[in-house]
Amino acid sequence: MKELLYEGKAKRIYKTEDPEIVLVEYKDSATAFNGQKKAEITGKGRLNNEITSLIFLKLKEKGIDSHFIKRISETEQLVKKVTIIPLEVVVRNTAAGTLSKRLGIEEGRQLSSPIVEFYLKDDRLGDPLVTESHIFEIKAATAEEINILREKALQINTVLSSFFNELGINLIDFKLEFGKDREGQILLADEISPDTCRLWDKQTNEKLDKDVFRRDLGSLTEAYETIFKRLGGHQHV
Amino acid sequence: MKELLYEGKAKRIYKTEDPEIVLVEYKDSATAFNGQKKAEITGKGRLNNEITSLIFLKLKEKGIDSHFIKRISETEQLVKKVTIIPLEVVVRNTAAGTLSKRLGIEEGRQLSSPIVEFYLKDDRLGDPLVTESHIFEIKAATAEEINILREKALQINTVLSSFFNELGINLIDFKLEFGKDREGQILLADEISPDTCRLWDKQTNEKLDKDVFRRDLGSLTEAYETIFKRLGGHQHV
Repeated sequence: MKELLYEGKAKRIYKTEDPEIVLVEYKDSATAFNGQKKAEITGKGRLNNEITSLIFLKLKEKGIDSHFIKRISETEQLVKKVTIIPLEVVVRNTAAGTLSKRLGIEEGRQLSSPIVEFYLKDDRLGDPLVTESHIFEIKAATAEEINILREKALQINTVLSSFFNELGINLIDFKLEFGKDREGQILLADEISPDTCRLWDKQTNEKLDKDVFRRDLGSLTEAYETIFKRLGGHQHV
Repeated sequence: MKELLYEGKAKRIYKTEDPEIVLVEYKDSATAFNGQKKAEITGKGRLNNEITSLIFLKLKEKGIDSHFIKRISETEQLVKKVTIIPLEVVVRNTAAGTLSKRLGIEEGRQLSSPIVEFYLKDDRLGDPLVTESHIFEIKAATAEEINILREKALQINTVLSSFFNELGINLIDFKLEFGKDREGQILLADEISPDTCRLWDKQTNEKLDKDVFRRDLGSLTEAYETIFKRLGGHQHV
C-alpha cells in the first residue's frame, strides 16, 4: 500500500522507500477556472504522464535538469523530492487567455518578446498575478531566486519553442513550477503537458491543449493524443 | 463659455487662453468600484480642490514639481497641460484594499518596505495590475520612464508620509498619475486627495478617505474636512 503524501487536482504524490524520491501518479481528472469546472477524462492521466516524461527527457538532453527520474508505468513516474516554490512561472510567446483579457490584446498576436509572469500558487486567493515586490513582501522567493527562475524559464522556452516548432506546433504559452532539493538547488518540477501549455497547430491554429476542455472545443484526449504522437510517443495498449 | 476638453469621473478639464495651461474643475461626484457605485456629495469638489492644492504646494516646497500652477476658485485650479501617461502609480506603506485581497495579508499590517505598483489606466479593462513586461509590450512607458516614475513615487512617499505623520495621520497608500509636458519632461499630475490616498488617524485608525464612501462608514465630507483642517486649510465660506 503506497503512502499518499499529497493529492492535487491532477496528480497524487506517494512516498517511496527512498526518502529522496517520490512517486507521481497522474489522474484522469480535468479541472479549470480554479476548480470550478471539473470532469473525469479516461486516458488523460496516461497521456500527461507520457508527454511530461518525453518533455523532461528532451530538456535533459539539452542540459536542463528537472526533478524527473523515470516513467515507471502508464500513469506513474518517479521524481526527486523537492520543496515546491509557491509560484507559477508563466512564459508567453503569443497573447492568449488571461494576458489577452488583462491587456486587451487579441488572442494570437505574437508578443514583441517573451513575457515571464509570476502567479502566487494559492487556490484560496485564486492564484493571483504578483510583482517582484509582492513576492519579496510575502517571502515567496528572494531576488536572486527570481532571477534564476526567470532565466531558467526563458531557457526552457527557447528549447521547447524550437522543439515544438519542428513538430508543427506553436508554443503559445506555458506554466512551470520549480522546487528546491535538499541541497537548496532550484530544479524544474511539476509537469509540462497540454494541461500546462497552450499548443496550437501551426497550419490550422487548432488548439491541442487544455483550452479544448476549458472552452468545450471537442475531444481532449484526441488533442492530447495528437501531441503525444507528434512527440514520437507510442501507444502502450 | 469655457470649452470642455475632457470630463472624467471626478473632474472636468477646460481650455484656457494659454494653450499650455488648462483649468481643472473638481466635481462633487463620488464614484467607486470602477464607476459601479456613484453619488453626488456637496462639498467634495471644493475639499479635493483645496486639499490637492495644499499638497502640491507642499511638494513644491520640497523640490517636487507637479503640473499645479494655482488654485483660482473653491473648485478650480490652473495646471500645466500635460499628456497623461496611462498608468496609475500606486505606493503602499501598509497593507489595505486590493493588496490585502491579492496577497491574503490583513489590512493594517505594515509592509517591510514601500511597494510601488503600476495599474493600466483603462476603465474598459478594469484598470488591471501590470508588470513591467506588460507595460513594455503595450508601449505604455519605456524602461527609463518606469524607473523615473518609481523613483519620483518613492520620493513623494517620503515627503508625504512624514508630512501626514506630523498631522497625526498614517499615509497607508496612494495613487499618482504623471504626465509629459511639451518638452517631454515627466511631471506629477492629476490630484492628491482623500479620493486618491488612504489616510488613517494615527490614534484611532479612523479612515479619513474615500473608503468612507466605498464602505459606507459615515460622512465623507466630515472625513475630508478633518484632513483639510489638519493641513491648515480654512473655510472660504
